[in-house]
Amino acid sequence: MNISGHTRVFLILGDPVEQVRAPQVYNHLFERHGVDAVLVPAAVPPEHLSGFVRHVLTARNIDGLWLTIPHKSAVLETLDRVDPLGRVAGAVNAVRRNADGTLEGALFDGLGFVKSLDHHGLPVAGRSVLVLGAGGAGMAIAASLAQRGAGALALYDPTAGRAADVVERLSGAFAVAARVAASADPAGYDLVINATPLGLKASDPLPLDVTRLDGGAAVVDILMKNQPTPLLRACHARGITAHPGFEMLVQQMPDYLSFFGFDTIAEALRDDPTEVRGLLAD
Amino acid sequence: MNISGHTRVFLILGDPVEQVRAPQVYNHLFERHGVDAVLVPAAVPPEHLSGFVRHVLTARNIDGLWLTIPHKSAVLETLDRVDPLGRVAGAVNAVRRNADGTLEGALFDGLGFVKSLDHHGLPVAGRSVLVLGAGGAGMAIAASLAQRGAGALALYDPTAGRAADVVERLSGAFAVAARVAASADPAGYDLVINATPLGLKASDPLPLDVTRLDGGAAVVDILMKNQPTPLLRACHARGITAHPGFEMLVQQMPDYLSFFGFDTIAEALRDDPTEVRGLLAD
Repeated sequence: MNISGHTRVFLILGDPVEQVRAPQVYNHLFERHGVDAVLVPAAVPPEHLSGFVRHVLTARNIDGLWLTIPHKSAVLETLDRVDPLGRVAGAVNAVRRNADGTLEGALFDGLGFVKSLDHHGLPVAGRSVLVLGAGGAGMAIAASLAQRGAGALALYDPTAGRAADVVERLSGAFAVAARVAASADPAGYDLVINATPLGLKASDPLPLDVTRLDGGAAVVDILMKNQPTPLLRACHARGITAHPGFEMLVQQMPDYLSFFGFDTIAEALRDDPTEVRGLLAD
Repeated sequence: MNISGHTRVFLILGDPVEQVRAPQVYNHLFERHGVDAVLVPAAVPPEHLSGFVRHVLTARNIDGLWLTIPHKSAVLETLDRVDPLGRVAGAVNAVRRNADGTLEGALFDGLGFVKSLDHHGLPVAGRSVLVLGAGGAGMAIAASLAQRGAGALALYDPTAGRAADVVERLSGAFAVAARVAASADPAGYDLVINATPLGLKASDPLPLDVTRLDGGAAVVDILMKNQPTPLLRACHARGITAHPGFEMLVQQMPDYLSFFGFDTIAEALRDDPTEVRGLLAD
């Protein structure tokens, strides 16, 4: 990595930001593909987010921002344009400055998720899906599933009103049969997704009753820690197809890179994501 | 260079910024000394400077800024504190965020210059000095010479009022006999410094009449391009001691690094600047 006055600069904004893996992963890709760009972290306090985003992008060689917790929703008020998935979900994880100076955001979390289903050979179109957890991740995933033509979409969240809010947003944007699920009961669904934090702590209950899953159902648990998660282990013990969420990180990278204009790297990753899997798994 | 979420970030602000060498030099030093920090360029348009500086430094891991042309003077209005040399010169080339959140600027150009005189074995105290050119570089150099106890300081600039302005600033800040020189005639001075751009173009006249230099006088030409410069060649042809300005870049680096808290690297450079000379000369 040889940073010079010619280098294009990108920042990843979080608070905290110490935990992010993106600088290692993307800087490795920039270097390997001979792209003179660098991604650096910025620990931006929430109260300074809007000013930081507007002003940092006035530098002609600072081209875009990666957004992580807690900035994904709050940044929207500062943007001129937001892609359809970002609008529905009310959150973005990427912001770029367009040639006309406008700031545009996009959301790739859910897109990465549905592409991970492709990778695992799990169809979406026409299927009946249950999403557990209607926070940021659940919202992004549900929006992408709706956009991809899921047959029926049920959302469950123990916090009152949260699932209803997501259902309302989805119904307004997509021709999908979306509804609030009364419980986490997975019976009758083709695909069940855990987008709750249950499984982070050793004392957590499972997010769903595995014995109630249909025999042909598939499960994805997007928890990144404690692999294989308790839910994945319980599914495997019963012979149920179940995948970790890791692949959604891999699958969203080409779209992310294309959004920022790095089409050559994006194409290379679409052709062969092996190296990226290694980098992300490190 | 392994940038992670833990990396401290610095930016060098210029417009343009492509020509800067600081990222290569300082990132090499950070890496070699095991310091988890990175310096990246930012091409900030002048009309956005103030907002950029205030907002970019709200990120907790963005600790400071390098300033280059055309931002060295304009940035002052955004700062809470400025060191004495920066105040007199009305310009800084470094800005940091202090622990209490205040923004503090400092000027190291002139300091590097007088330390380069130490390096070349040229005394300042009590000597009679002529500075040609009263722009930013001449101002910074004159202020540091005054602070260092020059006996008499004369300034010449063909632009009316420019030298008088510097003389007024110096006289208000230091106990130095400063005056405007009526011409670039170097007769009677112990030390003559070229801080004009004369010598950049092949058609430029010499900034001074070399035949008028005292036999024991010394000359420093701070032009960085076209080494050895026409002035240096003319001096050497007459047996006059004459040095390029390169060493002022070398000698300001330890103070720059200390200002940003990198005392270990600063000490190592003070002990042995050989490596830095190589990096800067590349």
